[in-house]
Amino acid sequence: MIKVVALDADDTLWHNEPLFTETKNRFRDLLAGYHSPEWIEERLYETEIKNLRHFGYGIKSFALSMIETAIELTEGRVSGSEIQEIMNFTTDMLKAPVCLLDDVEQAVSQLAESHDLMLVTKGDLFDQESKLARSGLGDFFKDVEVVTEKSQATYEGIAAKRGIEPQEFLMVGDSLKSDILPVIDAGGRAIHVPYATVWVHETVPDDVIRTYEFASVQAISEVPAVVAALAG
Amino acid sequence: MIKVVALDADDTLWHNEPLFTETKNRFRDLLAGYHSPEWIEERLYETEIKNLRHFGYGIKSFALSMIETAIELTEGRVSGSEIQEIMNFTTDMLKAPVCLLDDVEQAVSQLAESHDLMLVTKGDLFDQESKLARSGLGDFFKDVEVVTEKSQATYEGIAAKRGIEPQEFLMVGDSLKSDILPVIDAGGRAIHVPYATVWVHETVPDDVIRTYEFASVQAISEVPAVVAALAG
Repeated sequence: MIKVVALDADDTLWHNEPLFTETKNRFRDLLAGYHSPEWIEERLYETEIKNLRHFGYGIKSFALSMIETAIELTEGRVSGSEIQEIMNFTTDMLKAPVCLLDDVEQAVSQLAESHDLMLVTKGDLFDQESKLARSGLGDFFKDVEVVTEKSQATYEGIAAKRGIEPQEFLMVGDSLKSDILPVIDAGGRAIHVPYATVWVHETVPDDVIRTYEFASVQAISEVPAVVAALAG
Repeated sequence: MIKVVALDADDTLWHNEPLFTETKNRFRDLLAGYHSPEWIEERLYETEIKNLRHFGYGIKSFALSMIETAIELTEGRVSGSEIQEIMNFTTDMLKAPVCLLDDVEQAVSQLAESHDLMLVTKGDLFDQESKLARSGLGDFFKDVEVVTEKSQATYEGIAAKRGIEPQEFLMVGDSLKSDILPVIDAGGRAIHVPYATVWVHETVPDDVIRTYEFASVQAISEVPAVVAALAG
């Protein structure tokens, strides 16, 4: 029996990756006079990964990584107005409209009829709460957990805190690394709904994926039927 | 009967305000060639308050506000290496040791013997979890809630989610605006433990304070006895 259906948010309910991709393009264009696009992108990625440990995920962390990269790449020659441009990119990201993926509202409302829904999302608390409010989906969720990392221990903690057994917990999401494999490791169940693009930091080797069993569907519209079959 | 004793973190369990004060001093010194200290401080405060709406609380938000202020104050003339200095201030803040207030460990361990303890803190999820881990106090808390705002509705939600009545919830903290008045508005109980300094954004007019009834003690070491008296 499934007591809680949990859903990831970024790139599961609403588009997120394109916002970062677009901003990375603007960042490369801004610094085009200093270095090649490839070099800029590589350095930014390196800075992002290095800073995850201090900053965590989210737009504000990404903004600080862009600024740090701009200073390093230009050896301090970047101008105040160029940094201002990066601040503008950041404000644009924070204010960007929340664009739901196709059929999300119908799928979520259908799932909410039969199960308690929880949102489990990684990233910045303030930004994720703001996006949920703006998405119009807030009322479907009985519970929201914004977490700093989606590990096996995270999911074990989420289930334990609510007094449910791991196998009564089902997670739906686009990231194998964050939404699927650690849930299965914790004894729960998972449905993978891949997104068009995967951030390189979230990729998992094929030979690891093969050792896991989970449902995979093409779109969130298929999730209610799979949940009904699993629960049935 | 009190079922849950909740504690604020910043400036209740560990020192926080001095870290911001010290960084503001470094920021003023950095820009001393451009403007007077008072003017710099006022502009930074204005930017911080304006950005709370987009960025929320926390060190990363404060860092972005310092950068924005530096660009505005210098009309874009701030140099890359000066922005780098602000990034260094930020890293120093994120890595700063967690300094517990006097007698905190003993008070918290004593409270944990008789009650379920919860940490309720405003700010950046990543940073607050990191500080709790580094504080060595993590094991005393059964539950942690990092919230974007401490309003009456926030406390009502915290109690409802755990199936406890508001009057069974007691909050301990240094901020009248965030830890005391909204808890009482929600029907809960509160103990005020003032900190040496109060951020101007958190001040409450005296005539408002006078309409509320709550316990106030000089130090956290007095809290266990007050809790015992209230519970008894």
